[in-house]
Amino acid sequence: MQKLSARNILAGNIKEIRKGATTSHVLLDIGGATLTASITNESVEELGLAVGKPAYGVIKASDVMIGTD
Amino acid sequence: MQKLSARNILAGNIKEIRKGATTSHVLLDIGGATLTASITNESVEELGLAVGKPAYGVIKASDVMIGTD
Amino acid sequence: MQKLSARNILAGNIKEIRKGATTSHVLLDIGGATLTASITNESVEELGLAVGKPAYGVIKASDVMIGTD
Amino acid sequence: MQKLSARNILAGNIKEIRKGATTSHVLLDIGGATLTASITNESVEELGLAVGKPAYGVIKASDVMIGTD
Amino acid sequence: MQKLSARNILAGNIKEIRKGATTSHVLLDIGGATLTASITNESVEELGLAVGKPAYGVIKASDVMIGTD
Amino acid sequence: MQKLSARNILAGNIKEIRKGATTSHVLLDIGGATLTASITNESVEELGLAVGKPAYGVIKASDVMIGTD
Repeated sequence: MQKLSARNILAGNIKEIRKGATTSHVLLDIGGATLTASITNESVEELGLAVGKPAYGVIKASDVMIGTD
Repeated sequence: MQKLSARNILAGNIKEIRKGATTSHVLLDIGGATLTASITNESVEELGLAVGKPAYGVIKASDVMIGTD
Repeated sequence: MQKLSARNILAGNIKEIRKGATTSHVLLDIGGATLTASITNESVEELGLAVGKPAYGVIKASDVMIGTD
Repeated sequence: MQKLSARNILAGNIKEIRKGATTSHVLLDIGGATLTASITNESVEELGLAVGKPAYGVIKASDVMIGTD
Repeated sequence: MQKLSARNILAGNIKEIRKGATTSHVLLDIGGATLTASITNESVEELGLAVGKPAYGVIKASDVMIGTD
Repeated sequence: MQKLSARNILAGNIKEIRKGATTSHVLLDIGGATLTASITNESVEELGLAVGKPAYGVIKASDVMIGTD
């Protein structure tokens, strides 16, 4: 698969991985801000994710909310 | 409401608003990258969203995927 | 952040918190009905959630389905 | 299908339906509070939704966030 | 509840259940392909899910992305 | 981006595209069953989607529910 309909593909570097029983939290540094993804442990292994490696945060537009002060 | 459990609250500026029949697409500039949110037209009006205004992109961790090259 | 585009903000009281390895289930009493939220353990701590405290259940309109008998 | 894994099934009555080009917003009165669902126009027709009819709002636990004052 | 607005209801058979601390992964065989669902442990018990039993994978249209080669 | 954490990548062929004002519904034939995706009009154009073309339906495990009879 080369292209994806998800509107948001944010490039960054993995800064932390917290493994749970079935679910891991992957923290991505995207230009200073931190993006946290909750994904399956299988995905962490299959993608070979590790601290320091580059990765993308991928988010469907319908999953993004807008907030204001 | 002052605090929210969503792990991802990304500060930016609104660069474009595309209104549909019931749903709008709001494009946020977050430090160079663009974040697209698909929200209701009512929300656009109630929050007083407009191009150039500051806003946050809010995303639950379970809605973020990770991709690699 | 003061305002959020999410259409659904339901006021209630926390009646139970079940902590997992990385994910907690928070049960909210909203006027008799129970709303269950699956959120990160970090969120439970950062928001200081505890049984008996008031809280809101927040849901994006695109995450609500409709069922009929 | 008789049973569903979704943790949240909230009984209510339809108070408004706003049709868009492909997507409708259905407003449900659930014990005083309003729950807004964004669903396809096809679903509105197939389920025979109409103002005043009883219906359920169905939400997966991983789509519920928690907010506090 | 007899009918649901979710556009995608895929019939299959359960081929594996992986239980975590609060969340289980249920793997469904749908005509040769495998569909993985991440649901609460409570749902696994309440629905009486077990390997070999028939079940449906249910997905809202707004949660489906499209990819191409 | 070559790999994605989403557990569900279902191969199929596009059988119908319904365009709305900002959102399109793409119907994918996956081995006999139909998978409906609600995506932005921009994605339909950028991916060059058209009836008869092969495509993948991509779904995060946390967005799949399980139902039983």
